[in-house]
Formats: sequence, C-alpha cells, structure tokens
Amino acid sequence: MPNAKVLPLLESDAVVPCCPPLTERPMTAEEAESAARMFKALGDPVRLRLFSAVASHEGGEACVCDISDVGVSQPTVSHHLKKLKEAGLLTSERRGTWVYYRVEPSVLAAMGKLLAVPAAA
Amino acid sequence: MPNAKVLPLLESDAVVPCCPPLTERPMTAEEAESAARMFKALGDPVRLRLFSAVASHEGGEACVCDISDVGVSQPTVSHHLKKLKEAGLLTSERRGTWVYYRVEPSVLAAMGKLLAVPAAA
Repeated sequence: MPNAKVLPLLESDAVVPCCPPLTERPMTAEEAESAARMFKALGDPVRLRLFSAVASHEGGEACVCDISDVGVSQPTVSHHLKKLKEAGLLTSERRGTWVYYRVEPSVLAAMGKLLAVPAAA
Repeated sequence: MPNAKVLPLLESDAVVPCCPPLTERPMTAEEAESAARMFKALGDPVRLRLFSAVASHEGGEACVCDISDVGVSQPTVSHHLKKLKEAGLLTSERRGTWVYYRVEPSVLAAMGKLLAVPAAA
C-alpha cells in the first residue's frame, strides 16, 4: 500500500489535545493533519452555527430538536452534527427518542491553545 | 440578482475581530459566515503548516523562500499563502524580489476568543 497513511485518530471519547501554539514552532505534518481536521469541521457556516448552538445551549448539551433553527432541514442538521462528532468536537449520547450532543471542552481548549498569541506580540 | 449575497469583507488591512465565544450564545448567520471563513482557511494541513511556519518564523514574518519546507512546490506555497491572506489571517508586503508574510495577531486573538472555554466548564 504505497499511498497508505496512518492518520492520528481523534475519537470523540478519547481526544488527544493536539499541538503547541501555532506561533511556537512550525507544525509537523502529523500535527497539521490532526489540527486541520478540527478547523475544517468549523469551516462551514451552518456547522459553526450548530456547534455554537450546542455549545451555548442550557446545560451545555442539545438535541436536534433544540437546534433546528438554522434554516436547514433536520437531516442536514443531523449530518453536520455527525461531522462535528467525527472531528472530535462533539460527543453524543442517545436518551430515549433523541440523541443529545455536548461540546468536548478539552478539544475547544486545545484549539484555543493552538491560536494563543504570545504575550510579547 | 436573486441569488446574490453580500458577504462580510475581511480585508487583511482592516480586519474586524469577529464574534463572541462560541459557548456564549448561538451565532448569527452573518457571524458564522465571517468566522467560518477563517476556520476554513486553517482547515487544510499544508495551509496550516505554512501558517505555523510564518507565525513561528524569526521576527514573526517570512517569505516564500523561508518556508518551502513542506513538501509542495513554490507555486503551491504561494497559492496557499494567498488564501490565508484572503481570509485575513496574514498580511503581506513586497520588499525587492520577495513578498513577506506576517500573521495578523488581532485575527488570531479573535479566533482564540471564539474558542474560549468558560471558566465554569
């Protein structure tokens, strides 16, 4: 498999906070693969609104039924939530009829750390 | 022009730091358009490595000649730097033969603020 690449896995229940601040040293290819995945997940306006809707919802969690207010169909909402989950940004739990989504704070913190501006800048 | 949309402009020399923390309240469509553009620009591994190379380079700036170490051609490097500039993440200045790129700290700070985790979380 000459083109096979082993990518770091970001499982939603075992998230490895990634990478030093972007301003500290050039990222390695492996670090960039991992971090770009998180940024890409937030690089869509609808996905970003949904993420924000979950993140800011009462109790820090929301089901599709709570956040269908972004002008797209419920299947589309579910699709975007799945993408956010795959990127490790949300975790989910089924309770009765609904799946509840919750922001993974360690991942948010890791992304915030990546973007930290040096005090001297 | 029924499909025309006016998108917020993020000019590299007049960057408007955007949006409250994602956890504070649901983003509006306009805020999400603006912020998603920045996240999308960092959502590519090569682009993220280049951004990190510029951000961590001596003096906080770099030309294409300094950062061709990511395994892609110089035209590709230039293309990605242009995309980062269009997203408002880098500014550039021509000096003699080379164009020098510099990270826009206010934009980094705005993205870091977006991802801020509440102290209580």
